[in-house]
Formats: sequence, C-alpha cells, structure tokens
Amino acid sequence: MPDKKLHVGIIGAGRIGKVHAETIAFRLPEAVPVAITDLNREAAEAVAARCGIPQVAESSGAILADPKIGAVLICSSTGTHADLVVEAARAGKHIFCEKPIDHSLAKIDRALAAVKETGVKLQIGFNRRFDPNFARVRKAVESGEIGAPHLMHIVSRDPAPPPVSYVKVSGGIFLDMTIHDFDMARFLIGDEVEEIYTAAGVMVDPEIGKAGDLDTALVVLQFKNGVIGTIDNSRKAVYGYDQRVEILGSQGSIATANCYPNQAQISTATEVRRDLPLNFFMDRYTESFASELRAFVAAVLEDKPTPVTGIDGRIPVVMGLAARKSYDERRPVRLDEV
Amino acid sequence: MPDKKLHVGIIGAGRIGKVHAETIAFRLPEAVPVAITDLNREAAEAVAARCGIPQVAESSGAILADPKIGAVLICSSTGTHADLVVEAARAGKHIFCEKPIDHSLAKIDRALAAVKETGVKLQIGFNRRFDPNFARVRKAVESGEIGAPHLMHIVSRDPAPPPVSYVKVSGGIFLDMTIHDFDMARFLIGDEVEEIYTAAGVMVDPEIGKAGDLDTALVVLQFKNGVIGTIDNSRKAVYGYDQRVEILGSQGSIATANCYPNQAQISTATEVRRDLPLNFFMDRYTESFASELRAFVAAVLEDKPTPVTGIDGRIPVVMGLAARKSYDERRPVRLDEV
Amino acid sequence: MPDKKLHVGIIGAGRIGKVHAETIAFRLPEAVPVAITDLNREAAEAVAARCGIPQVAESSGAILADPKIGAVLICSSTGTHADLVVEAARAGKHIFCEKPIDHSLAKIDRALAAVKETGVKLQIGFNRRFDPNFARVRKAVESGEIGAPHLMHIVSRDPAPPPVSYVKVSGGIFLDMTIHDFDMARFLIGDEVEEIYTAAGVMVDPEIGKAGDLDTALVVLQFKNGVIGTIDNSRKAVYGYDQRVEILGSQGSIATANCYPNQAQISTATEVRRDLPLNFFMDRYTESFASELRAFVAAVLEDKPTPVTGIDGRIPVVMGLAARKSYDERRPVRLDEV
Amino acid sequence: MPDKKLHVGIIGAGRIGKVHAETIAFRLPEAVPVAITDLNREAAEAVAARCGIPQVAESSGAILADPKIGAVLICSSTGTHADLVVEAARAGKHIFCEKPIDHSLAKIDRALAAVKETGVKLQIGFNRRFDPNFARVRKAVESGEIGAPHLMHIVSRDPAPPPVSYVKVSGGIFLDMTIHDFDMARFLIGDEVEEIYTAAGVMVDPEIGKAGDLDTALVVLQFKNGVIGTIDNSRKAVYGYDQRVEILGSQGSIATANCYPNQAQISTATEVRRDLPLNFFMDRYTESFASELRAFVAAVLEDKPTPVTGIDGRIPVVMGLAARKSYDERRPVRLDEV
Repeated sequence: MPDKKLHVGIIGAGRIGKVHAETIAFRLPEAVPVAITDLNREAAEAVAARCGIPQVAESSGAILADPKIGAVLICSSTGTHADLVVEAARAGKHIFCEKPIDHSLAKIDRALAAVKETGVKLQIGFNRRFDPNFARVRKAVESGEIGAPHLMHIVSRDPAPPPVSYVKVSGGIFLDMTIHDFDMARFLIGDEVEEIYTAAGVMVDPEIGKAGDLDTALVVLQFKNGVIGTIDNSRKAVYGYDQRVEILGSQGSIATANCYPNQAQISTATEVRRDLPLNFFMDRYTESFASELRAFVAAVLEDKPTPVTGIDGRIPVVMGLAARKSYDERRPVRLDEV
Repeated sequence: MPDKKLHVGIIGAGRIGKVHAETIAFRLPEAVPVAITDLNREAAEAVAARCGIPQVAESSGAILADPKIGAVLICSSTGTHADLVVEAARAGKHIFCEKPIDHSLAKIDRALAAVKETGVKLQIGFNRRFDPNFARVRKAVESGEIGAPHLMHIVSRDPAPPPVSYVKVSGGIFLDMTIHDFDMARFLIGDEVEEIYTAAGVMVDPEIGKAGDLDTALVVLQFKNGVIGTIDNSRKAVYGYDQRVEILGSQGSIATANCYPNQAQISTATEVRRDLPLNFFMDRYTESFASELRAFVAAVLEDKPTPVTGIDGRIPVVMGLAARKSYDERRPVRLDEV
Repeated sequence: MPDKKLHVGIIGAGRIGKVHAETIAFRLPEAVPVAITDLNREAAEAVAARCGIPQVAESSGAILADPKIGAVLICSSTGTHADLVVEAARAGKHIFCEKPIDHSLAKIDRALAAVKETGVKLQIGFNRRFDPNFARVRKAVESGEIGAPHLMHIVSRDPAPPPVSYVKVSGGIFLDMTIHDFDMARFLIGDEVEEIYTAAGVMVDPEIGKAGDLDTALVVLQFKNGVIGTIDNSRKAVYGYDQRVEILGSQGSIATANCYPNQAQISTATEVRRDLPLNFFMDRYTESFASELRAFVAAVLEDKPTPVTGIDGRIPVVMGLAARKSYDERRPVRLDEV
Repeated sequence: MPDKKLHVGIIGAGRIGKVHAETIAFRLPEAVPVAITDLNREAAEAVAARCGIPQVAESSGAILADPKIGAVLICSSTGTHADLVVEAARAGKHIFCEKPIDHSLAKIDRALAAVKETGVKLQIGFNRRFDPNFARVRKAVESGEIGAPHLMHIVSRDPAPPPVSYVKVSGGIFLDMTIHDFDMARFLIGDEVEEIYTAAGVMVDPEIGKAGDLDTALVVLQFKNGVIGTIDNSRKAVYGYDQRVEILGSQGSIATANCYPNQAQISTATEVRRDLPLNFFMDRYTESFASELRAFVAAVLEDKPTPVTGIDGRIPVVMGLAARKSYDERRPVRLDEV
C-alpha cells in the first residue's frame, strides 16, 4: 500500500458517479472519497451515506476549492464536462472525466489546452480498454502473437435503445454509442484512422429516425498502417449486450466471445441452450470501471502518464463527426476533413 | 429411386470434375456417368477408371453430340464456360456449369440467351448454398426465426493464396474468390444488393499487388431492403479455411462456426486448444458438392427449376465488377453503374 | 489402387448389412461385392439392386462355398455369429464379424479356436475406434500428449430405448450397449481392466426392469496400470445421441464433444441455442463404418493383422458379464472371476 | 439497507479470514467488522489496517466476550473449529464456521448440540453452493427443467497438490478436498446418499502415498432416491482449477464449464487455443465467498434459517469417512456403517 493516499472529490452522483464512488470507497485502499456533489442533492446524499463519504458539497465549485482534494471525478452530464475540466485544471486538481469530453471540438480543445497549461493529469473514462477480453486482444496485437493486423471487426450492440428523449440530446449514435468503439479501434490497433465510411439506417425504431438519428450502423475504418476495420452497431440486440471483437493478423487471429452469467449448458428434447449473455454494461464492465480508476489513482500517486489521455478523448469525437458526415454525403470521409 | 435415370457427360477432369464424377458414379443412383473428356486425356482416363465411366470422349463436341447424354457438367477452365453453355444448350443438353460463367457480362448474356431460347435447364455451381451451416442460416432468415435481418457479416478466408501465375488469370479477387460470397449474400438475405463499397489492400503478398490484384478486402453491401452486409476476404488465414456468417435480425441473431476434423479439446499446462479447422474447401464442402448435383439431377428428372439459375450466375459477376470499381474510385458504386 | 481386389460376400442385409454393402460397393475401389444373402430374400434383393451386387445367394452356405469370394461380412443376428465364424474359417474366408461374437464365452472360444486353426483373418465390428473423435483421443494417449492417463470418463447414451421385445433378447444392457464402451475403454487406455464395479438402476422405463434388464448404469473400471475409468450409460438422453469421452493425464486432459448437424448458434430474446446433436448412430458414426471396412480390406490385401481382433471381441463380453455380476452382488468383481 | 447492522468479530486472519474480512468491510454495508484476532498478531494487524477494523483482539476469548459483537466468523485452523463453535454458542454469538467443523464426528456432535441448545445461528462455509454455475445447476434440478435426475458427475481437480506437510495433517483427501464435493452432491440433488464406493490411487506424487493419503479418486454415490453420482478428484490438473458438474435427467441434461480469465480465442498456424482457466479457488470462487456471507448476515438480521446448516456440515464428514472405508475395504460402504 502506498504511504500517501489520493483524496478524491466526485462531481455527479448519477449512475456512473455512484459506480465510481463505490470503487473509491470500497475497492481502492489508496484512494479516499472526501466529498461528492450533484444538482440533485438527494442523490448525492444517498451515495455519500452508502459509501461513507464524509461531505456532500454544495457545488462543484466547493469541491474544486477544497484544498484537501487532490483529484476530481467528473461524472456530471456531458454538456458540463469541458468547462469542469477547465475549472478543475485551474484549481490544480487531477481529473478523471467521463466520456465524451464534449461534442464540440472547440470546447474540447479549450479543455485540453487548460490541462496542458496547468500540467494536471487527465484521464478519459474509456473503461472498456480495461475489460479483460479487450485487454487480452490488445496484448495479442502488441506482442505480435497474431502477427501484423490486417482486418478488425468490432461488434457493439445494446440490448435496447435508450428513450427517444435521450436520443434527441445524445449527440447521435456516433458520438453517444460508437464513440466507445472508435476508442477501442484505436486502442486495439495502436494506430490512427485516416478515413471512415458509413452505411447506416433506422431499423429498430422509426422514432429514432424522426429524431434525426440512426439506430443501426456499419462503419468502415481505414487505418494509416493499412488495417481495415469495421464497427457494427445496433441499438437493439434482443439477446442482450453484444460486445465482441475479432482481429485477423498475418500470423493468426483472435476473437472474443460475450460474457455470460454462468457457464451452464442445458440440453433438452428441443435444443441445446444457455442463458442469455450479461444484459447490461454495468454487469459486463463492472471490473473495468474499477480498473480504470485504479490506473488513474496509480498514475496520480506515482506521477505516471494516465493510460487514456485527453487526445484519446478528442479523436473519437472527430471520428464520430466523420462517420456522420460520411453517412450524410454517402462517401468515405477523411478525418482531416473534419 | 426414380424409374428413369439421368445420363451425364462430364467436360473437364480436373479437381472439380473429379469430385463431380465421383458423386455421379458413387452417390447418386439416379444418375449414370456416360462419358468424360479433358484436354489432358490422361486425366480423363484416370477419372474414368476410378469411377467406372465407360467412355473417354475425344472432345466436348463428342459429348454434346452423344444422343444418350441428357445433361452435361461443365468443369473445364473458366474461359470456356460461356461458349460451352451455348453449345450445350443448342445440343439440347441440360447444363450444370461451374462458377463463374465468365468474367465478361456480354459473354454471360449470350450464354443465358441460348439457355433461354432452347429451354434447357441451367444450374451454376455455387455449392456453398448447400452447406449445412449456410443452409441453416438461410432457413433462420426465411422462417423468421431471427426476425427481419438488419446486419450481415460474411467471413471467407483462404488458408493460403494461389500461385501468382493463377492470380494473374483469375479475374481478380472479386471475381475469383468473393464471387462465392456475393452469391452467399444474395442467397442468405433473399434480396438484391443496390450499392457496394470496397476497402481493400495488399497485405499478404506484394507479388499479388504487382500482378494488379488485391489479397485482403472488406466489401460493404447495401441491400435494396435496407440490410447492410459485409464480406471479409483474406487470401491467407494461417489457421485454415475460415468460412463463417453472422446475421443480426430484429428478433435474434444466428452465427456459424468453422468445421473441424474432430471435436476434441486438449488442456495442457500452457493452454486449452483444439486442432485446426478443416483446411481445404474439398474437405469443408464435401457434402455440398454432392448435394448440389443431387438437386440438379432432381430438377432435370422431375422437371423443376434448378435452385441456382443463370441469373444467379450473372449477378455476382456484376457485384465483382462493382466491388473493383469502388476500390479503384474510392467511392460506393451502385450496381446499375456496371 | 491395389492390383488385386478383395471379393466380398455379405451375410445379412439388415440395417448394418446394408451400410457395409454400400461401403463395399461405392467407397472402397479395392473391394468388390460379389454376393449377398439374407433370410429375408427381399431385403437382400433390395440391397443388391441398390449396390449393384451381381448375386443374391440362397444361403450363407452358398456364399461360403463360392471360390471367388475371399472374405465375408457377418451381419446376421447375434445368435448366428459364432457358428458362422467357425464355418467361414473352415471355408478359408477372411471374416469381418459384427459385435458381439456371442454372449456365451464358450461359443466365442470355439469361434476363435477355428480362426486360429485356419489362419484366416478376423476383425470385429467395433467401429467407434475409427471415429475421428475417439481416434484423436487415442492418439493423445498413445503419443504422450497428455502424459500418463489417470482418470477416464466415457459417456454413452442412446436417444431412446429399443423396444422391450428387443431388450428381452439383447443380452442385457452390458452386452448390448456397454459392450461398445468396454471396447472403447481398452482401446483408449491401451491396457486391460482388472476389476469392475457397477451401480445401476431402472430409471427410464419400468418395462425394461420387468424384462430383467437395467436402463441406466455407471460402471467403474480399474485398469491393471492403475487408471480408473467410468462408463455412464443411459438408454434415453432426450436431446439425442450422447457420445463423449474425457481423459485426465499427468500432463493434460483431452475431452470430446458431441457432433452436430451444423455449427450454427441462434441467439434470441430467451436463450442462446443450437440444434440438437446428431440423433442416430448411423449419422454419428457414418464415416467410422466405412473406415473399419477400409482397414479390414487393407489388412487382408496387404496381409497385415486386423486392427480389432478376436480377443478384442472376447474381452468386452467378459467385462459385460463381470459388470452384471457386480450389480447383482453389489461388490467389485475381478474379471478373472468370470 | 437495513436499519440495524450486524457487528462481526473475525477469528483467524489467514487466507480465508482475510477474504471474509474484506467482504465484511467493503461489500456488505449491513455488516460492520468490529474486531479480528489471530495467533499471529501481525497477520491480524495487517488485515485490520487494510480493512479498517478498529480492534485487534488479544484472543478469540476477547472477541467472544465483547458485547458489541453479534456474530463471529471462525476462520482459524480446523482443529479449533468445534471448540470455538461451542464457546461462541455459549457466548450467544451467531456463528459462521469454515468447513470442516472437525474430522471427528463426536466433536462435531458436541458443537452442534451447543448450537441447538443456545439457539444461535450456525452457517458452514460451503461457499461453492453460491457459485453462479452450481447455483444454476441446482435451479435446473429444483425447477424440473431437466426432469428427474438420473446420473450426476462432479469433477473437482486442484491445479497442484498442497505441500506434503499439509497433506499429513489434512485429514486425508476425502475430508480435505472431496468434502466440498460431498456437500455439492447433496446440494445439487437435494437428497441424501446411502452408499459410497471408492476407487482411488496415488498417481500424482508418491510422497502423498507415503503420507498415507491418496491423490486421485473416483467416488460413486448411491442416493436414496436412486440417483447415481460420481466425484472425480485429482490433486493435480496441470491446466488449472477444474470445477465442473453434469447432471442427466429424464427431460434433459445440464453441464457447466470452467471459468476463464477472458473469452478470447486465438487461432494460429498450429492450433486454436485459449488461455488456461482460472487457476486458483480464490479467483474462481471470489463472488461465492461474498455471497455466502451476504446470506449469513441476512439470515441473522432477518432471523431466517441459514442456507448451510450444522447438519450440512456433519454429513460430508460422514461421507468422507465412508469413502475412505470403502477404499480400505474395497467394497461399497453404507453411510449408516460409519
């Protein structure tokens, strides 16, 4: 255990804020939750009570002003992220910020500039990199276990679409859902995407189309190093949360399967079956949420670079904008066009 | 067993001609092999001896002139297919023709016109439709078992590239290799493709690139009914012949796995492993070659339509031409542009 | 192809006789079917017509008297096997005999003595040794791939019990069903069993119990080399034919899975499922029936020992008798007690 | 969250004491760790520091005397369990006791008598019942999903044997290792075993044999309701921790697979492989350790019966003694003989 502990303030007590608060409180002995805040004070109080967080702060400002606090977790709504990053940086706090930083590149750039200027650490919440399956795939690529990568397929399907009210403010499927897969693609291949082509449609729910968004998409990624990748997104896979990846390389391939609540197979007079895969990102990625915070805390305490940087937060937004542009213009779009 | 038997002449005694001769000789009691011919007379004689075929004909002309013969199997080199179809049709023989009919749409159209005019039956050798895995997927789509299809992925990788000398005369990866997958895509979805986008490269062997061809390709198919599909082709999957398909539908998904020589799993101190999948199309598709001929013989004897028609032979060639055009012009190409 | 061909007579045109006739006729160019006979002449005629066998013999005697015939396949009912072996041996014919030779050790010994005396070759129809799964397991043991074997489990379950009328004349589950597994156990481990303990019951159908037989059994095998094995038998696995084996060795383990008609997996809103495994031994063991005859024909033509000898036919009967004795006396029984 | 919390004292700060302390400290908001003790005071202090346990007690006596403490976790060495149960019961503390209670039935009976007399709750640490795989199998049996059970196989193999010094004081494989499987067998079938037959040997390490113990065992269980079960134990499966079960019932079967650190499959030029299964019971059964304590805490706070009772702790010891007796006397042994 480290001698010194990281004192953490949490901004936002919604679903993800609660997950992170529990990790800080119960699973990371080297971090101490000091304060939490939320526009909905009751939510913050409930999390504080559950996790033994001593203080429910009035506002994010109060947290940023607290000299005891060394790092903040920004878990508030997307629209607030960029400004909070700027403020936290200026307050000298290290920052863990949920994805996306923002939908506007200008606001992202302002945030990243503040981070650069102040020298605080910034980690973006692309938790899936820490999932044992995807980490194993990355290891296979990095170590040369499958040789040089040629083709990659990411399948990323939700069990059910969010409410249309959410869809309307989500920034669209590419910034809301595919953004995780854009990050995954860069992480797995270890190279940058040059050009994107999108085929997509509204197949799940016409209301999503009326809201100006898409619910089913196939995105082709052309990497600088020649690798060709695809991302398959659907807002509705009736059998549950479908999160897989496959890479073909010159010396072999690696493919992951979904995660299941149990490993039991039942054979009956009509079929051989198993229970559905884990249905919810909270179940599937439980451990990765803890792992990303563990890495963040370690990066701060040991003064190392964070494993998911501000640039890692920016590029998937560029990719999301290019993906939509490709769909709108029915042509491949280079990232430098965005 | 039917009262009347189909008397068959075989044109071409190469690899595939031999397979078909064996099926006719040993596995289809309702068909009788009458004669075989090949430019390489020795090859024809060896097959005739092995399969008990009474006559080794001087030429395809001799076979087409034989009044005993009701149907011919065209298993000669691609360049001869279209002309042989025309001649066989005019000779009143029913025709089973290996894929592709030709690389030229004009020659294909001439062949199909002759077939139409003479009223003989024509079946194209897209054997994979008869593979139990792909037939099961088609059944799932057709029966509504997985609802309306949304997204489809075809993976079709060879264990090793053909010799460059072959590559040069192959018509290119899209007409030589992907053509099977184009047929599969149409077969599985039961609808036509409208537009194609291709990302591709030379990743396996630079000599293939020097020959003007590609060895790795990702083709996106936009179907008229909205379905989006991909085809993943590689000339070299070091672990063997990789032939899979996955379809996501509104009510579920279906995915096939590769076929293996055995179902044994070995666990050692270093890994849990199994033997490689079947490495060669002759092993993987053995049964489908027999099934397609069984269907052809039945179509002739019972005067039913063949399950893979002349149009089914033509459209994949159009798709192959569109796929290459898309690659060359870096844009999606509509089939009606070809 | 060998210069000389083996001319074969087939005694018995029932289910298994028909399978063997087809193999000889269609799949083994080095063997020629010369004559077939059956008490039911119509059955023999039908098989002869289907397989192009020139002669339907009046009786087994006529076949044994035919000087053209070099080998006979004994596919008649179990009760006739031992006497036919004696007669065939005396007639100088090589013999392929279906399992079991007999239920009586005295009759078996008489048959084996005749074989020994006359020097003809004898192969017993334990086809499962030729199944790719079990052959792979044997290879893993023989090659040392999993080290020295410690524990073995054989699962062998039928999809449904035979008619009670058959059960009554079957010799009981251990001589009728487990006998295959006794052979498999010896084959896989490559050593002899010393002692057997049986736990069993009537769980599937009380009528089987009334007929004096059992329908569910667990047999423990103590091998001379220390290996401990189990055989799990059920007359009814509702999901189909269940044929698996698992061996733990000092350096690893090997386990086989069942065979399926396809490799498709379907995911729906309620489950992830696949179609049932192959339901019938004719489907599951198709290739092994051909392989055992190929090996027999080769042994005769090349004058090599047959891969499944008369002793291999005798020992499983001893094991079956010991297994029943163990059940009756509720104690482990040594094979030398039988 | 419950209004009232359970205050817990922990006796023993070894491997399992540490696991339980972490669960109480970090994962069960309704339980509060009050004190911990260990003969090795440093061990206790380290756990206390890590888990924020306010008091390191001098002795188990000090814990039992503490009026704030409502329940104790007995995690000390096996030889101390029975006496501590008696003392804890007399002190009015609810008891969670690691398995086995003792190797002596007399001492177990004394402990259970004290529990009965004082009316405290007792739960035995058969954590595997709470594993999602085994819980799923139990559900399938209990709900009738696979009909009436006929045959059951439990495979339970360790990755490597314990040190011989431990083997000597372990009580032997049946009381040390198989005891978990005896509990599992009763739990899954929901019925009692009547008779046991054991085949076993020393195959892994002759030193284990010299210590008077066995390292490889096959135990046959005859249940009162007719079900026949087997337990396959090995002290050394080189590929890792092998924990599986399979049950055949009248309407189907259920079988579990091992748990793996990831779901990735790698295909190379030589094999299709995956990483080894979880190698250690702490990794495999992590969640079940937390679940059993959650159930214990709930049973105390809500005054319900515990899910694993004193009798559940006693019977597997009887089975272990019968299993050894069967091996020694080479005959099936009825439990009522012990």
